[in-house]
Amino acid sequence: MYPKSIQKLIELFSKFPTVGPRTAIRFVFYLIKLDQEKFDELLSSLTDLRKAIKICSFCFNPFESLDDAELCPICRDNSRDKTLLCIIEKEIDLISIEKTKKYKGLYFILGGTINLKKSDKKIKRIEELKQRIENSDFQEIIIAFNPTIEGEATTLFIKRDLKPLNIKITRLGLGLPIGGELEYADEDTLSSAFEGRK
Amino acid sequence: MYPKSIQKLIELFSKFPTVGPRTAIRFVFYLIKLDQEKFDELLSSLTDLRKAIKICSFCFNPFESLDDAELCPICRDNSRDKTLLCIIEKEIDLISIEKTKKYKGLYFILGGTINLKKSDKKIKRIEELKQRIENSDFQEIIIAFNPTIEGEATTLFIKRDLKPLNIKITRLGLGLPIGGELEYADEDTLSSAFEGRK
Amino acid sequence: MYPKSIQKLIELFSKFPTVGPRTAIRFVFYLIKLDQEKFDELLSSLTDLRKAIKICSFCFNPFESLDDAELCPICRDNSRDKTLLCIIEKEIDLISIEKTKKYKGLYFILGGTINLKKSDKKIKRIEELKQRIENSDFQEIIIAFNPTIEGEATTLFIKRDLKPLNIKITRLGLGLPIGGELEYADEDTLSSAFEGRK
Amino acid sequence: MYPKSIQKLIELFSKFPTVGPRTAIRFVFYLIKLDQEKFDELLSSLTDLRKAIKICSFCFNPFESLDDAELCPICRDNSRDKTLLCIIEKEIDLISIEKTKKYKGLYFILGGTINLKKSDKKIKRIEELKQRIENSDFQEIIIAFNPTIEGEATTLFIKRDLKPLNIKITRLGLGLPIGGELEYADEDTLSSAFEGRK
Repeated sequence: MYPKSIQKLIELFSKFPTVGPRTAIRFVFYLIKLDQEKFDELLSSLTDLRKAIKICSFCFNPFESLDDAELCPICRDNSRDKTLLCIIEKEIDLISIEKTKKYKGLYFILGGTINLKKSDKKIKRIEELKQRIENSDFQEIIIAFNPTIEGEATTLFIKRDLKPLNIKITRLGLGLPIGGELEYADEDTLSSAFEGRK
Repeated sequence: MYPKSIQKLIELFSKFPTVGPRTAIRFVFYLIKLDQEKFDELLSSLTDLRKAIKICSFCFNPFESLDDAELCPICRDNSRDKTLLCIIEKEIDLISIEKTKKYKGLYFILGGTINLKKSDKKIKRIEELKQRIENSDFQEIIIAFNPTIEGEATTLFIKRDLKPLNIKITRLGLGLPIGGELEYADEDTLSSAFEGRK
Repeated sequence: MYPKSIQKLIELFSKFPTVGPRTAIRFVFYLIKLDQEKFDELLSSLTDLRKAIKICSFCFNPFESLDDAELCPICRDNSRDKTLLCIIEKEIDLISIEKTKKYKGLYFILGGTINLKKSDKKIKRIEELKQRIENSDFQEIIIAFNPTIEGEATTLFIKRDLKPLNIKITRLGLGLPIGGELEYADEDTLSSAFEGRK
Repeated sequence: MYPKSIQKLIELFSKFPTVGPRTAIRFVFYLIKLDQEKFDELLSSLTDLRKAIKICSFCFNPFESLDDAELCPICRDNSRDKTLLCIIEKEIDLISIEKTKKYKGLYFILGGTINLKKSDKKIKRIEELKQRIENSDFQEIIIAFNPTIEGEATTLFIKRDLKPLNIKITRLGLGLPIGGELEYADEDTLSSAFEGRK
């Protein structure tokens, strides 16, 4: 139905997170009508992104490298607490945690949870994680995955894999979220809230 | 617009929790069309409710009293842990907590939180609560209000009021709910999850 | 889990339109805590409803009869256009139509659509409908069912059944609703909008 | 908070339709992690889009021009009915209408409705529209705007502007959408449905 060059872009945009075919169509029409100047700005910003952004050699956090730095600003920051490591699933979780201003240690981005549908329960970057821990002086490893089935399973596997390293491993507290209501809380959350009372 | 007897019932149903005028109208039409037998069953069940249900003289939990019992089945149950008291806002919270099967102590239904819009920050049943605690052997008081602004404020006031009794006071753990995601958690919830890590 | 008299009412309230078990529980707790005076007011209003409300002998509209009237205020109203009959599914549709102030004829409440899951495609009150039309001077019969599958099917059956009476039969216009958008309209609605252009 | 090249792209993506800052961030992380090959495919598809897509010189519909064609495939299609013109607001409305397969005439994409907040009630492309009509043999102009306040206002203004041309002007039928219910229809929609009965 659509011209080929439009169809191609609809397909590519449909792979963007949260984007379905209908939204992808709207993106294409938006781009068709965009001023040439704005369109060129988008193209050059996309090209810049790939040139400017490096992946931190310690934590896998993407950062803009102006020089030959291999480490991201957080890993380079001497005021951060080098005895704490927080393992997270993805880049955006790091941003959520930084916003709380409660955590001052380092991060390690795992890049994914285990896939429960596959028989191979391989954890991405688990070797890199172990190597980072062995070469540092962490006193606490905080596992900060989503309390979903995949997150819980990955937490269990990582705990097992890190056990030989003999470091304190904690995980984020579960319970009622701020603004939540007992009446609508599921039984597992409410059970966690009772267990975590203090 | 509606006949008077319908209008009257719409008004009364509109005061039911969660019911707006449109739903109230539907209730009335439902009742108009109901078989006489079913309608009489509803009327007699309503009458029975008020006859059969007593309010527990200890915890304010409504219960069906077949005899002269003043205490609800939970308060009468000798297998419950009489050293634990859980203070909740309303009846339905008790049901939510019982469903978790995690809590085996007694309850006290406060019947409401403080109203932050009123200058008088009176807590309902606070005298009854203090009297219950003074006359029992509780070793831990668990405050289980919703982590909303009203719930938090009521928690603070109750803690202050119970302080002279010198008993351990805890509150439900805050954190990520089961199934929740860091990415969508608000900053306060994520902060609580970090503080409550274990 | 609940006392028997509470359980019974939860069951009865769960049959009210739009009410699920959780809402039914809230209704019961609301009633338990209601002042005796307000509770008695509810009981007497329920009793009044059944005493005061009659079903109109022409159109099946419930109305409050103060005397021996057999007809509802609409059917008795001499300013209404007695040449128009609007067939509707249920009482609340009559109220929706009256609110538009666009229709000044009479109504006939069918009391339900045909049940597509049953082999017996019987239309409720079809005999009464035919008898009303035969004994009146209608010049237009407006079928005003929801444009759902059930409504469409019932419309077809009624058209077939009324055909021998040889009266003009119309049905409500289909098309874009006010405030709707072409982009989100389904194909059938948009097709109807093109067919119904004027 | 983000590196400059990321921040820039977040800004640009936030201007895409339906995209907020949170989704824009997810787009950027998606692009950072994309294979180089897939990334290059996206860049070249974007460049292709602007090269390949022309705007039809009659109806303003974007199309892929392989040669020197000035007209889009619909305008060039000899089987289309050249006596019908459908005026629409935007490109995607054309696609919605084509999907119905009910309309076989030509289109004119106005490119926007009037802005009710501005004192200047200028209609985009109104001169082009008049010129198209004057130079063609249309026998019916179908105004197919959304039945929103902006759409209704634009319809009125266009009707006024086209009146001197003395051609039959129709607009899409209003009424209940397929699957809709009388009970939940607003009064204006239900009024339209009564007016449009047939």
